[in-house]
Amino acid sequence: MPFDTGGLEILEHTECLSLLARAPLGRIVFTDRALPAVLPVNFALDGEDVIIRTGAGSKLAAAARNAIVAFEADDYDPATRTGWSVVLVGTARVVTNPAELARLRTLPLEPWAPGPHDDFIRIRAGLLPGRRIRHGAPAS
Amino acid sequence: MPFDTGGLEILEHTECLSLLARAPLGRIVFTDRALPAVLPVNFALDGEDVIIRTGAGSKLAAAARNAIVAFEADDYDPATRTGWSVVLVGTARVVTNPAELARLRTLPLEPWAPGPHDDFIRIRAGLLPGRRIRHGAPAS
Repeated sequence: MPFDTGGLEILEHTECLSLLARAPLGRIVFTDRALPAVLPVNFALDGEDVIIRTGAGSKLAAAARNAIVAFEADDYDPATRTGWSVVLVGTARVVTNPAELARLRTLPLEPWAPGPHDDFIRIRAGLLPGRRIRHGAPAS
Repeated sequence: MPFDTGGLEILEHTECLSLLARAPLGRIVFTDRALPAVLPVNFALDGEDVIIRTGAGSKLAAAARNAIVAFEADDYDPATRTGWSVVLVGTARVVTNPAELARLRTLPLEPWAPGPHDDFIRIRAGLLPGRRIRHGAPAS
C-alpha cells in the first residue's frame, strides 16, 4: 500500500469511488462572496460525477455555476482514530438540458432539507484523491 | 426557533460553540494552488478559536498562513435525516509565540495521523453560523 508524505494510506481510484458511493452525505466546498464556504449535502453518483439537488436560485446554485469546487466525504471512528476521506475536485455546473434533467430526477436522491430542490448540480471530477488512517492510535 | 430561507433551524452562537466543543473531528477548508481544498483534522477549542496541529512545513501549514479559511463540523443521522452543521470562517495563522505555543501544547490535542505535528494553527472566528435539520423526513 502506498503512503503519502503525511503517513496516510493513499487510496486507489476505484476504492475512492466505492467509498463515495456508500457515503450518505458529503460536503461541497465553494466560494461565497470571496469567502470559503462549505455545506453538508446528500448526493448521488452518476457514473463518476457527483449530483446534488438544491433550491433553484439558492446560494449554492449561484456559487456553483461553472466554478471549481471540492466535494468531500469521510468516515472516522474517534475510538480507534481510523477512517477515510475522499476529496473530489472538479467543475460544477447547473444542469439545464431537459433530457439530462429527466434522467437525474430518477436517481435515488431525495433532499433532506425542506422545500423544493429543483436544481441539479453536476460536479465532474478532475481529481479524486483519497486517504485512510489505518493504524491511528492514541499517543501515549 | 428561527429558520433560514432553506428551512433549516438557525443555531445560536453558544449552541454552535457547544456542538463544536464536543465534535471529535472537523474539516478545514482552504485554497491550495488556487484550488479549493478540504482536509479532515482533529482539533481543540481555545476560547472560541479552533486549534489544529500539523506537520511543520506541511501543505496545510503553508496554505493556512494568514489566510481566510473555513472550518466545518457536523453530525448527521442518515436514518432520521436529522443533524447539525457548524461552519467557522476566520483567519488562520501559524502560532510562533513561544509562550502561546507552550500553552497550546497542554491542550488535549493529539494528532491522529502519524509523524511529528509541531506546528499549531489558530483559526480566529469571524463568523460562526450553525444549522440544524430537525424534522427531516424521507420524501414520499
